[in-house]
Amino acid sequence: MPIQAVRWSPTSAVRIVDQRRLPEAFVERDLETIDAVAEAIRSLAVRGAPLIGITAAMGLVAGLRETRAAGREQLLTALDGAVDTLERTRPTAVNLAWALERMRGFARRCAKADAAALWTRLRDEATAILEEDCVMCRRIGAAGLALLPRSARILTHCNAGALATGGIGTALAPIYLAHEAGGTVQVYVDETRPVRQGARLTAWELVQAGIPCTVLADGAAGALLARGAIDLVIVGADRIAANGDFANKIGTYALAVLARYHGVPLYCAAPSSTIDRALASGEAIPIEERSRDELDAPAQAAVWNPAFDVTPANLVSAYVTDRGVVRPPFPA
Amino acid sequence: MPIQAVRWSPTSAVRIVDQRRLPEAFVERDLETIDAVAEAIRSLAVRGAPLIGITAAMGLVAGLRETRAAGREQLLTALDGAVDTLERTRPTAVNLAWALERMRGFARRCAKADAAALWTRLRDEATAILEEDCVMCRRIGAAGLALLPRSARILTHCNAGALATGGIGTALAPIYLAHEAGGTVQVYVDETRPVRQGARLTAWELVQAGIPCTVLADGAAGALLARGAIDLVIVGADRIAANGDFANKIGTYALAVLARYHGVPLYCAAPSSTIDRALASGEAIPIEERSRDELDAPAQAAVWNPAFDVTPANLVSAYVTDRGVVRPPFPA
Repeated sequence: MPIQAVRWSPTSAVRIVDQRRLPEAFVERDLETIDAVAEAIRSLAVRGAPLIGITAAMGLVAGLRETRAAGREQLLTALDGAVDTLERTRPTAVNLAWALERMRGFARRCAKADAAALWTRLRDEATAILEEDCVMCRRIGAAGLALLPRSARILTHCNAGALATGGIGTALAPIYLAHEAGGTVQVYVDETRPVRQGARLTAWELVQAGIPCTVLADGAAGALLARGAIDLVIVGADRIAANGDFANKIGTYALAVLARYHGVPLYCAAPSSTIDRALASGEAIPIEERSRDELDAPAQAAVWNPAFDVTPANLVSAYVTDRGVVRPPFPA
Repeated sequence: MPIQAVRWSPTSAVRIVDQRRLPEAFVERDLETIDAVAEAIRSLAVRGAPLIGITAAMGLVAGLRETRAAGREQLLTALDGAVDTLERTRPTAVNLAWALERMRGFARRCAKADAAALWTRLRDEATAILEEDCVMCRRIGAAGLALLPRSARILTHCNAGALATGGIGTALAPIYLAHEAGGTVQVYVDETRPVRQGARLTAWELVQAGIPCTVLADGAAGALLARGAIDLVIVGADRIAANGDFANKIGTYALAVLARYHGVPLYCAAPSSTIDRALASGEAIPIEERSRDELDAPAQAAVWNPAFDVTPANLVSAYVTDRGVVRPPFPA
C-alpha cells in the first residue's frame, strides 16, 4: 500500500509527511494552526494539487478548534479569514480554491448548527474530501489501467502519486493498479528541477511500493524518447481549462512536445475537480513564480523560475479522470 | 576579457581553474603529473571539449618534465603511456583524442631531437594548440556574429564559453563579440543538470563579462520558447559526425526538438577539429554514462545518467566554425 500523505492526528490536527525531508528522512508533523498550514503549503512541506486542497480543508478544521467554544458567528467569521489566508498560499492549482470554497459553502448551508456542532460537521466534510480523493484516485487508476500496454515503459514528471493526493495518486494510480494486478511496469522518473519532486518523491514512493523505477535528468527525457524506450508519458495536472489546456509542473510542456515529436501518447491524469470550467483556455491560468533560491544561480544573474507551465490540449492524447477517459471541451 | 581557463605555471605545470568550485570560489590549481591531469579531466575540474584537449596536450608536457633527463626513447615511451592514460579519461569529445594524437604524431616527426629538445618542442606544440584554440574561438565568434539579430535573445545549454576553451568559447563567442561591439544581448542559460554547468559556469562567466543573463531550469526552456522569448538557440559540440549529427551535453537534443517545434533556429558552434570525419553518423559516437551520484536519487532506484546526447543534423540550422558557417556532409 502506498503511503498516506495526510491524516488526522488524535487531537484533530493535520498530520502531514514533511515532504521537504524526503527521501532522506520520513518525518510526520502535526499542523495545529492556520498559519502552520499556510506555511506548510507555501514551503512545499505538502504539495501536489489534490493534496494541498485536502490539507487546506483539514487545516481549516484544525485551525478552528479553539473557536468551537465561541459563538457560531465568530466561527463563521474565523472560517472566512482562514479561507482567505489559505487561498493565497499558492495560485496555480485549482484544487486548493475548490476545497476551501467547498468548506465555506458547506458551513453556510449548516444553518441551524451551533459552533461546536458546526465544527464537527466541518470535520466530517474535510474527512469526506480526503476519502473522496482516495476513491477518485482508484477510479483514475482503473481508467488509466486500460491505456497501459503489457510490460509498460512509462515516463512521468514531478510527483503525481500518493504523496500528491489522499490516495494512490493520479498519474501513478494506473501504475499502482498494474503492479497490484501482477503486471510489469518500468517507470522512468524525470528528476524535476528545481525542487526535484521526481527524484526525491516519486522515486521514493515507487521504491516503497517495490515498483522498478529509473531516475533521469530532465534534459535526458528527449534522448530516452529517441531511443524508443517509452510507451507512454503520464503526468498530473494542477488546473485544466475548459478547452483542455492544462497547467502542471514546469517541464511538462517540453515533455508534451517531445512525446508528440516521437509519436508517444501523453496522458493527463487528474480528478475532475481539477477541471476549471470557468477558464476558457490555459492562457488564463495563473502561473506561480517561485524564489530564485530554488535555482542557486550566481547572485548577479537573473533567474526565471516559474513553478508550472501550460500544455495545450492539442498535445494531450487523453485525460484520465475519476469519470473515465474524457476529452475536451469540458461543459461549463 | 573573459577568463583564461588554462595556462602554463612558471614551472610548466598546467594551471587550471578548478571548475568544480565555481561559482562559489575561484581557485586555480597546478597539475604536476599525468595522474593529476587525468583526475582533473575525469572529475570535471576541467571540462568542455576544446579545453580538455588543450589541457591534455599541456598535461603531457607537464607530466613528462622529469623524463627530460632520461633518453629520447624513454621520453617517447613515457609519452605513449601518458597518451593512453589521458585518452581513456572521457570518451565522447573528439578534441581529447585529436589533441593527444597531434602531440604523439608531432613527437614522432621530431626525429633528431634529444629528450630535452624534444620536450621543449612538445611544450611549444601544446602552446600552439592553446593559441590556435584562441584564434578558432574568435573566428567562430565572427562567423556567428553575422547570425545574430539586433537585440538578440539567445538560449544556450551547458557551458561552451571561455571556461570550455582556450579562448572566448564556441557558442558564447558570438555573444562576447556582440557585447564587445556594443550590441544588446540577453542570454538565457539552462541550468544543465546534473552538473549544472549552465547555472554555475555560463552564468558566472557572463556575469564576469557584464553580459545580462537569466538562469532557468532545463524543464523551463519549452515554456520560454512557447512565449516567443527566444530568437535563436546556440550550443557547443563534443563531436560532430561526417553527416552533421553531433553529440553535446545531455538535454541538447530535447532543446533542438523544442527549437524546431517553435520555428527557432538552432546553431551548433565548434572548432572544425570537433568534426570527426571518420564517423558516418551520430549513432557511432560513444556516449559517456556518468555516476549515479550526480543525480542524488534514492539508493534503491535505478539511475540513467548519460552525459551527452546526439542531435541529428536535420534539427541543426547551421554549424558555426572557425572556417565560417558550414553545412554537412563534411568531406573525409
